[in-house]
Amino acid sequence: MTEPRPNTGPLKGIRVLELTSAMAGPYCGLLLADMGADVIKIEKYPDGDDIRRSAPPWFNGEPATFLAMNRNKRGIVLNLKDPAGKEVFLKLVDGADVVLENMRPGAMAGLGLGYEDLKKRKPDIIYAALSGFGQTGPYSGRRGFDLVAQGMSGIMSVTGEEGGGPTKAGVPICDLTAGSFTANGILCAIIHRLRTGEGQMVDTSLLEAGIAYTAWETAIYVSSGEVTGPQGSAHRISAPYQAYRCKDGWITLGAASQGNWARMCKVIGRPDLLEDPRFKDNAGRRGRLNELNEELNAAFATETVETWLARMDEAGVPAGPIYNMAQVWADPHVRARNMMVEVEHPTAGTWPAIGVPVKLSATPGAVRAAAPLLGQHTAEILAEVGIEGEALAKLHAAGAVTDAALADKEKTAAE
Amino acid sequence: MTEPRPNTGPLKGIRVLELTSAMAGPYCGLLLADMGADVIKIEKYPDGDDIRRSAPPWFNGEPATFLAMNRNKRGIVLNLKDPAGKEVFLKLVDGADVVLENMRPGAMAGLGLGYEDLKKRKPDIIYAALSGFGQTGPYSGRRGFDLVAQGMSGIMSVTGEEGGGPTKAGVPICDLTAGSFTANGILCAIIHRLRTGEGQMVDTSLLEAGIAYTAWETAIYVSSGEVTGPQGSAHRISAPYQAYRCKDGWITLGAASQGNWARMCKVIGRPDLLEDPRFKDNAGRRGRLNELNEELNAAFATETVETWLARMDEAGVPAGPIYNMAQVWADPHVRARNMMVEVEHPTAGTWPAIGVPVKLSATPGAVRAAAPLLGQHTAEILAEVGIEGEALAKLHAAGAVTDAALADKEKTAAE
Repeated sequence: MTEPRPNTGPLKGIRVLELTSAMAGPYCGLLLADMGADVIKIEKYPDGDDIRRSAPPWFNGEPATFLAMNRNKRGIVLNLKDPAGKEVFLKLVDGADVVLENMRPGAMAGLGLGYEDLKKRKPDIIYAALSGFGQTGPYSGRRGFDLVAQGMSGIMSVTGEEGGGPTKAGVPICDLTAGSFTANGILCAIIHRLRTGEGQMVDTSLLEAGIAYTAWETAIYVSSGEVTGPQGSAHRISAPYQAYRCKDGWITLGAASQGNWARMCKVIGRPDLLEDPRFKDNAGRRGRLNELNEELNAAFATETVETWLARMDEAGVPAGPIYNMAQVWADPHVRARNMMVEVEHPTAGTWPAIGVPVKLSATPGAVRAAAPLLGQHTAEILAEVGIEGEALAKLHAAGAVTDAALADKEKTAAE
Repeated sequence: MTEPRPNTGPLKGIRVLELTSAMAGPYCGLLLADMGADVIKIEKYPDGDDIRRSAPPWFNGEPATFLAMNRNKRGIVLNLKDPAGKEVFLKLVDGADVVLENMRPGAMAGLGLGYEDLKKRKPDIIYAALSGFGQTGPYSGRRGFDLVAQGMSGIMSVTGEEGGGPTKAGVPICDLTAGSFTANGILCAIIHRLRTGEGQMVDTSLLEAGIAYTAWETAIYVSSGEVTGPQGSAHRISAPYQAYRCKDGWITLGAASQGNWARMCKVIGRPDLLEDPRFKDNAGRRGRLNELNEELNAAFATETVETWLARMDEAGVPAGPIYNMAQVWADPHVRARNMMVEVEHPTAGTWPAIGVPVKLSATPGAVRAAAPLLGQHTAEILAEVGIEGEALAKLHAAGAVTDAALADKEKTAAE
């Protein structure tokens, strides 16, 4: 088994206990782990994170979605409903800085492990709870998923084609943004704790993450009362700012500012449009989008994607191709920015992980290790709190924890 | 003029100089300002952030988009091309913790104000640069916009309807996520500096933010080589997990796990589906989505949105309405979570701002003040570095800074 790569991240030495499943909670843990935190993923007994069963896609026998969300973490399986398992958890809390969970609000308190409980034991603990709707309010008890949040935050109402069917952002924007916002909240809480010694609770939700991202749509609504709808690739406020069809495919183009507009008109051989009073400013162009697009569609149809992109690049007008995932990962710039990093998994071989998007010069984050097998680090982590040998075997046998090595032995013996 | 509300945030006392325009950079500053940082927005001389001219929507004479992105900040206008303006900037750097910019890579260095320059003057400065493509790599010199990044990150290739035209996520996912990721990087750098005294540079981009969000699509691609396409509201891996048409509208429904699947079958009066071997697990349901949807569409068409949502809620199956922005802001839960906060603007009256999505128990973030007028805090901020009275008037007259009060006086005198 390959050793993890060295930890050069800014959060080195900060320990996070992550009690999460699926995507939003794990993504928060991933962002902290990428930056060097020691994230211990505590999976539920006996079969772990539900997402282990959300396959295909499989990657050499492992669920690819679990691999994608849990790199850089150590994994342990704890039975929090078992008194001995709970005792192990509390010992881990003693040495932790952050507890992160995305259970249904109240579930941790029901186990006697809510923020109020843990605070009594460790007053400076930072406790982050990520849920569908938040810890308070009339819907706090409801289960929420990314799709539900995309629907209720208004994001679906503004995504898709005019007059088309319900469309969501193709990526799980509410899950991932809730994860990123929770990481932000935890980092703020760490800063406060470093300065004062005080811990606290962090509470956010998929719904609030989605609403925060409706900044433009909300600005329009509160200013004018106008309720916006979907409009394909076009921008709500700026024009031209959308996809245009060329001879052999589509490009994206952002030429709404006066400077880019002027440059673009020259590139497409239509300097006369600069004199057209209908299109003299962004408000005019956006207000008469159909008329504008009649002119632009005719121009773009005359040349290929490659030709237009080269000309726009030369003129400094923002434009680009519409890549599928194969094209994204073949792009030399994407590779040059280290956006794909290979990492060795204990059983599945070399996993191609998405790189760390934020580059820090002095303490760079990194993909150091692949996602853990179920219970892979149980023995290692329990040894850190003084539980090993016989004591570990007893907990494992009693169903309080799962240790991967002991489970393997049982399996071999049974065969 | 109303006084700002008290600052209870965890970043109180941390000073950020924000040299940004439009959305991604300002959103990063907003996230830090919401959490209590003293964010000084340094707008370019003479007319400020381009987005001030990106209207309609207007809100009582102010550009609503600028209001949306710049609450909680103080505003100053500095001419960085003027030696005296530059000197003022450097004095501000001496008292700052973070410099945040979203100019084209190299632009700040071209002014002699890049990270290497500022580090010489203030070795522990944290310098965050947010751009379309990042500070390095073959495309670093290109201009990038949210749309371009949605196209090149693969997000557009998986958003929209099967066989439909190019569709982007209706909200500027790459702009906002790049802003959130930059905030994350800055907070990590602050933690490192609190622990070691060392500053550093933070570098990320719209493109990398977009790519990070393709976690599922990339997992599929690297596992199987399959290139995914758009599929409306459906999920790439889970089923049923999409929008369904009821008698009078649409609902979203997430019932892919075995537990939710079983509950849903009972709610729709189709317990027989649980015995159907085609649909026995998620892989089967996702693999035969058309067959599954034939059954489900027939069921959902029989009742209204309200009826189905009530029944799903009672059974604990995640489901929800598809809200437009008016419905989002009328929802009692959204209100109960303080997602809309009123704040007094100096001239435009009461601005309804999106609330702080992340709730901290001990040091809550808050919307304390509205976005600044152009040059509103120039005098106040310059006074903090010892420039006032005659000295301020001289800088203003020379075109090194704009002070709103002096500009008003000139305007009145000219009338």
